[in-house]
Amino acid sequence: MTSSLQIAKRGSSVPARPKGFDAEVDIVVVGSGAGGLSAALFSRWLGNEVLLLEKAPDLGGTTRKAAFWYWVPNNAAMRSLGIEDPKSDCIRYMARLSRPEAYAPADARFGMSAWEYSAYESIYDNASVATELLAEKGALEYRHCPDVPDYWAELPEDKAPKGRVLLPKDACETMSDGGEVAVRTMSSAARRDGVDIRTGYRVQRVVRNDADEIVGVEANGASGKGLAVRARKAVIFATGGFTHDVEMRKNFLSAPVLGGCAAVTNEGDFVNIGSSVGAQLRNMNYAWMCPIVLEKALNHDPSLIGTFSPSGDSMIYVSKHGVRAANEKLAYNELAQTFFEWNPTLGEYSNLVLIAIWDRRSQDHSASAEYGRFIVPLGTNDDHVIKGATVKELTQNISSRLAKYAAHTGGLQLAPDFSNSLVTTIRRFNEFAKTGKDLDFHRGERQVELLFNGPTASQPTGPNPTMFPISEDGPFYAALLTGGNLDTKGGPKTSTDGKVLDTSDRPIPGLYGVGNCVASASARAYWAGGATIGPILALSFLAAKAANAEPVKQATPTRAAAE
Amino acid sequence: MTSSLQIAKRGSSVPARPKGFDAEVDIVVVGSGAGGLSAALFSRWLGNEVLLLEKAPDLGGTTRKAAFWYWVPNNAAMRSLGIEDPKSDCIRYMARLSRPEAYAPADARFGMSAWEYSAYESIYDNASVATELLAEKGALEYRHCPDVPDYWAELPEDKAPKGRVLLPKDACETMSDGGEVAVRTMSSAARRDGVDIRTGYRVQRVVRNDADEIVGVEANGASGKGLAVRARKAVIFATGGFTHDVEMRKNFLSAPVLGGCAAVTNEGDFVNIGSSVGAQLRNMNYAWMCPIVLEKALNHDPSLIGTFSPSGDSMIYVSKHGVRAANEKLAYNELAQTFFEWNPTLGEYSNLVLIAIWDRRSQDHSASAEYGRFIVPLGTNDDHVIKGATVKELTQNISSRLAKYAAHTGGLQLAPDFSNSLVTTIRRFNEFAKTGKDLDFHRGERQVELLFNGPTASQPTGPNPTMFPISEDGPFYAALLTGGNLDTKGGPKTSTDGKVLDTSDRPIPGLYGVGNCVASASARAYWAGGATIGPILALSFLAAKAANAEPVKQATPTRAAAE
Repeated sequence: MTSSLQIAKRGSSVPARPKGFDAEVDIVVVGSGAGGLSAALFSRWLGNEVLLLEKAPDLGGTTRKAAFWYWVPNNAAMRSLGIEDPKSDCIRYMARLSRPEAYAPADARFGMSAWEYSAYESIYDNASVATELLAEKGALEYRHCPDVPDYWAELPEDKAPKGRVLLPKDACETMSDGGEVAVRTMSSAARRDGVDIRTGYRVQRVVRNDADEIVGVEANGASGKGLAVRARKAVIFATGGFTHDVEMRKNFLSAPVLGGCAAVTNEGDFVNIGSSVGAQLRNMNYAWMCPIVLEKALNHDPSLIGTFSPSGDSMIYVSKHGVRAANEKLAYNELAQTFFEWNPTLGEYSNLVLIAIWDRRSQDHSASAEYGRFIVPLGTNDDHVIKGATVKELTQNISSRLAKYAAHTGGLQLAPDFSNSLVTTIRRFNEFAKTGKDLDFHRGERQVELLFNGPTASQPTGPNPTMFPISEDGPFYAALLTGGNLDTKGGPKTSTDGKVLDTSDRPIPGLYGVGNCVASASARAYWAGGATIGPILALSFLAAKAANAEPVKQATPTRAAAE
Repeated sequence: MTSSLQIAKRGSSVPARPKGFDAEVDIVVVGSGAGGLSAALFSRWLGNEVLLLEKAPDLGGTTRKAAFWYWVPNNAAMRSLGIEDPKSDCIRYMARLSRPEAYAPADARFGMSAWEYSAYESIYDNASVATELLAEKGALEYRHCPDVPDYWAELPEDKAPKGRVLLPKDACETMSDGGEVAVRTMSSAARRDGVDIRTGYRVQRVVRNDADEIVGVEANGASGKGLAVRARKAVIFATGGFTHDVEMRKNFLSAPVLGGCAAVTNEGDFVNIGSSVGAQLRNMNYAWMCPIVLEKALNHDPSLIGTFSPSGDSMIYVSKHGVRAANEKLAYNELAQTFFEWNPTLGEYSNLVLIAIWDRRSQDHSASAEYGRFIVPLGTNDDHVIKGATVKELTQNISSRLAKYAAHTGGLQLAPDFSNSLVTTIRRFNEFAKTGKDLDFHRGERQVELLFNGPTASQPTGPNPTMFPISEDGPFYAALLTGGNLDTKGGPKTSTDGKVLDTSDRPIPGLYGVGNCVASASARAYWAGGATIGPILALSFLAAKAANAEPVKQATPTRAAAE
């Protein structure tokens, strides 16, 4: 767990002039998640001297908290199994989901911009190449997950609905600790191969020469100790998104998100650093979304994990009116949108908090500490769980809990008819559970819903494994949920080979970015599990190749610095 | 009507160095809408030499298309009528609507950020002062609209629900031509008082000296003819939002907006120019929203006006499924959100296009060419109107029309059951109309819905003036609607006195912004008619005072420029 006391505070991001350096390498990489570690490895393997700076005391950023599934279209394992994944179809699937309102099946670019289309091409062409190289070098060996479906496997545009997901080879059986494994193996390989890794240094700004080329960075530690590093060829940022900068969240995201489970160090540093040198910002409205436990988010709990798995069959989500608002088992990126429905008559986000409610059956059989589940085992921290022997008592306790957080939710409270409504809602849900058909929200009808259904009682069971009647008798349990970020998807726009572009689409010489700190061409889409990390590895591979080809830049102190 | 051929193409926004100027003044103002004209006037009245540049051949920008209601809290007319509008209550109302999810009644700043709160204070404190000065000087005389309600007049937080709206004195009876009048009187006053006004010059970039102060601008005309102007004290941008830059819309707005009715010159110039000198962007996700006629937007019709007035009582909006999706008479900023509801199961914006449907009664009695109404008089351009003698024929014609635009709507088409569904929907609506009670969407229950209800048949009438049964017999009429922008609300962040701020909240010396080209603190709110222009006049007044107090800056050619 990282304390913010151990991390340097944000300073000015205005670029500095060369004034003498503490170190000098070919390529400086900033950040140590999947993007940073892979960029450092790829750069090093091309023969560069590489220095990697991480602002936290520990390596790994958000990646370390992730399951590290990685989505690799047409990967080697698919090819050897004979699973076909043609390029054009795969790009079509990406386009269909990224900008559904612009998707045009007959268009040469499926309605996408040239930038978006070329990013999808680059992902398709390079994810497997990058993945194989990482595996060959022993930095990231994988195992194939042939049975994991894409999140929109049922769409006619998905011609390879299973087989694109890989996982670090030594991840546990339940596949939840992939991030820990990947950070360990990638950073070991980096050290083995001579990458200079320094933790506890926050890069505050770039160093820019008189020709407006980026020639290094200035960083400092929590104690204030400074470090200026010259980058002969390039600086590659991989510092994550802006999930933990409240101001940026409010002013860019398409929804009033209250928090997220990115590493607490994801404060949008590169939005500021890039903006300060005239970078063009793009895709600032979208994020990798996921329901999260409200209280953990508001309490800035660094252990917060997204509710990937809405476990429990005798479990529903209800609004403050005591009615269901969505299919609780929908893929997380989609379900998260439900929390942000604007009520134009009342002038409020009526679903900003939804309440998960379950009974003893689900408590006894669906508890787990993995995948951000809110039904947690006995004896583990369950501060977020609200209990009641009866519906009435549960209602009272939910009310009190909501009151505690009213200042952060626009005063959200239960409607007066919540308790009665909830009884009616449970009755209706129980009928659906008995028949196996959710006539309101079609729960359990998609492959991805089974993937994340979590453990359930082995018996009795109903016709639909995602639903079972909620008991009429207590005890009852509840948890407050809201929509959150895994991390954001916007930042400086780059070329497909990671060059940060100015407002006229011209590269800012020497400045690169990969991962969640730069603009993703995926817009609103979450194509599948690992649609975050797979593309990042592909684009990091391209960025490292381009950075390697950069000319060495002048970085002698100038008149301006001398002043 | 402005042809894009008469406007210079976008060039690089990278700042230039001083290289010799064609003209020299104290203050350069860019843009000639309400923000630009008022900033020029206020600056001139403080004794400055002022040059105003407008990129279009004509003055007025979006303002000229507006009704130019202006929302002025605690205005002189209210005070003389004894209508109380205390500052704290007014700010509370602004806060409640700007960020409903953060509104905290007991908090000293009502849950808003310091920047937001101070902006509301500045608006309250200065809108009336600015308004009175413009009136006294004969630049903008007004009449009071004591009966026009705020858009959320029913909220308990609105303590002065009527009386805050003013209108140019010589606007017509129906109050729709205020913008034409205001641009005429303000520009006449500017010329009279010695402001140098030049049209047909697009400012492409600022000129920055070695101390990183802004000391002028470079502009060019459609023919390419350049113009470099030195600003001894400051440059004030008032160039409007980014409604007509597709790329920015897609990458910043919270919703997939297909167009809008801002002046066609509102292409986000200041997002680029500001970004190029390290400005901090804020409130990029929000826009002043309004339903618009889909076809006019997709055809880039410069005469497009927002559908402020959803006229017709025997009229409903239905989705592609033939069912109503909202209260058709809701205030436009709110109703616009309905179009962007994400369907997480189908992976589509199912309401991206809604279809207004009406009968002969509404056609005969609710047609008008004002306020963006889609029911237009016989003999005027009604290309957007789809007709059918029967529901079935209407359905066929709607289908064909939608097919024409499929490449721009993600392939949106009518559901197979549309026709039957529509009949059922009309039957249900007609029951509501007879009783006067809309049990589904509460149509007609708010003051603002009557304000914009438009003309209706004088008889027969029902118990609710916004609803009348739709005839069972044709002809029927339809129009395709989507959610659009009046203009966007995001851009470089400024201090309350208009100073553009860098990523560390420090002013960029000499650079100012007002109006829709800079970040609005109103976030998602549309407080009332004129909530656009009233605050702009207040903030323009403050910006002009601050610009007037700026020191004169050095602008001699430098080593860099000589290179």
